[in-house]
Amino acid sequence: MILNSVGIVGLGLMGGSLGLSLKHLLPNTKFIGYDHNETHKKDAIELKLVDKVTDNLNDIFDCELIVLAIPVDGIIEILQNIKSIPKESTIIDLGSTKKQICDNIPSSIRENFVATHPMTGTEKNGPNAAFDGLYTGKTVVLCDTQNSGKTQLKLVEQMYKLLKMNIISMDSTTHDENAAFISHMPHAISFALANSVMKQKDPKNIIALAGGGFRDMSRIAKSSPAMWESIFKQNKTNVLDSIGYFKKELEAFEKLLENEDFVALRAWMSDANKLHDILK
Amino acid sequence: MILNSVGIVGLGLMGGSLGLSLKHLLPNTKFIGYDHNETHKKDAIELKLVDKVTDNLNDIFDCELIVLAIPVDGIIEILQNIKSIPKESTIIDLGSTKKQICDNIPSSIRENFVATHPMTGTEKNGPNAAFDGLYTGKTVVLCDTQNSGKTQLKLVEQMYKLLKMNIISMDSTTHDENAAFISHMPHAISFALANSVMKQKDPKNIIALAGGGFRDMSRIAKSSPAMWESIFKQNKTNVLDSIGYFKKELEAFEKLLENEDFVALRAWMSDANKLHDILK
Repeated sequence: MILNSVGIVGLGLMGGSLGLSLKHLLPNTKFIGYDHNETHKKDAIELKLVDKVTDNLNDIFDCELIVLAIPVDGIIEILQNIKSIPKESTIIDLGSTKKQICDNIPSSIRENFVATHPMTGTEKNGPNAAFDGLYTGKTVVLCDTQNSGKTQLKLVEQMYKLLKMNIISMDSTTHDENAAFISHMPHAISFALANSVMKQKDPKNIIALAGGGFRDMSRIAKSSPAMWESIFKQNKTNVLDSIGYFKKELEAFEKLLENEDFVALRAWMSDANKLHDILK
Repeated sequence: MILNSVGIVGLGLMGGSLGLSLKHLLPNTKFIGYDHNETHKKDAIELKLVDKVTDNLNDIFDCELIVLAIPVDGIIEILQNIKSIPKESTIIDLGSTKKQICDNIPSSIRENFVATHPMTGTEKNGPNAAFDGLYTGKTVVLCDTQNSGKTQLKLVEQMYKLLKMNIISMDSTTHDENAAFISHMPHAISFALANSVMKQKDPKNIIALAGGGFRDMSRIAKSSPAMWESIFKQNKTNVLDSIGYFKKELEAFEKLLENEDFVALRAWMSDANKLHDILK
């Protein structure tokens, strides 16, 4: 694919990894980064996540492809500040929520915009967490694509295919419902699990016994509070609903164990096993 | 270390991996396996987890070291059926609960017995899941060691050191409390998470979006219902107590989000982050 310039706002795990991966795939493209954190700017250049950084957002808005890789409330703010960009420019975001973002794009740039959510990440953040391969083989969701320009949509699909991603399309409402179950609610659970252990009398003695199961269950409890605050804020209703469903299941477990109904308890666990017939 | 013979009851993930790893470290030792599953017996021989299998438990009881690698209710049953073994013999179990096991060992073999819980495993089970390295670098808990014979305790410590494990000692009551938090309750959560997704209208559409976070959080929901039934049974009170603490935290999250108290929500997440100052 031919792409003259890519401007990335936010040089952390997501934006930094995208820059790094695309730079290897598109050696003739110019990559410009923007970040309000001075250390991030220096690190991004040192780690070669982008070719140069700028303090002027207009340099980013002049790029052929503009990538918004910042917390979801920041995405809405920045979109509303883009007054005018060339007709052919493409803007994408990498945010974990999609409904409020899609509902708040100024109509003047609606066709320029493609809402995307790459279903990848780690518990780490910042430029040092970025790595080539974060996107490879993962799924990316494109939302409300009927409102994006054809040229823009084609470019974005080309880019994600170049990154060897599996592209799925859905409306932003369904995305946010599903993302609550598959990502947002599990993050709330992981934070709650970490806090329940940390509030015990001697957490160190408990944590000394941690094996792979606990490590996996608590890994995402290391995620950035700032980033997750705005995700929970934007997807409040779906997150609370999905926690409701989860609590119902946990309470079913409690009841079965309290009543020592081990036949039903075993059946309940066998039902859970079936998830892995679908999740390969 | 010198060890003439090891008898392993249960040739699944834990017992099979122990056989495989020790065989490499102790090439002059004879390894005999016992399993009531015919396929497991064949697989264990094919995979060279043990040198031979027997249908006669007495062949196992004749070994210098007897390893009980079966579900925790089975461990209690088998211990109560061991009438007499040589004074120098050593018996260990690898079960996830310790209190009921320690409370139910016949006094005639109490000194022969060392209660151990290697804090390792995967969501898989059976001989095919066994691998050399399952134990390497992991922690093993030894419980109520004051009731074990000195020779037996020394042999078990030597064996776990040979496997490059980190040995911790504690009483079985504390073990079961801590294991509830670090292993049993997280398993209940993972099962509940899997079931909450599976009971939605279209789980496939949700699961299509699964990234690393959900995969990690739901991995142990693949664990064996038979094995976990007996763990939950034996550690009922501690499991229910720890779930109580977890639910309190999850409900704190719900309340903060409902009330849109984002300052406190961010602080709550930062508290959870601190787990990883301890869990390296």
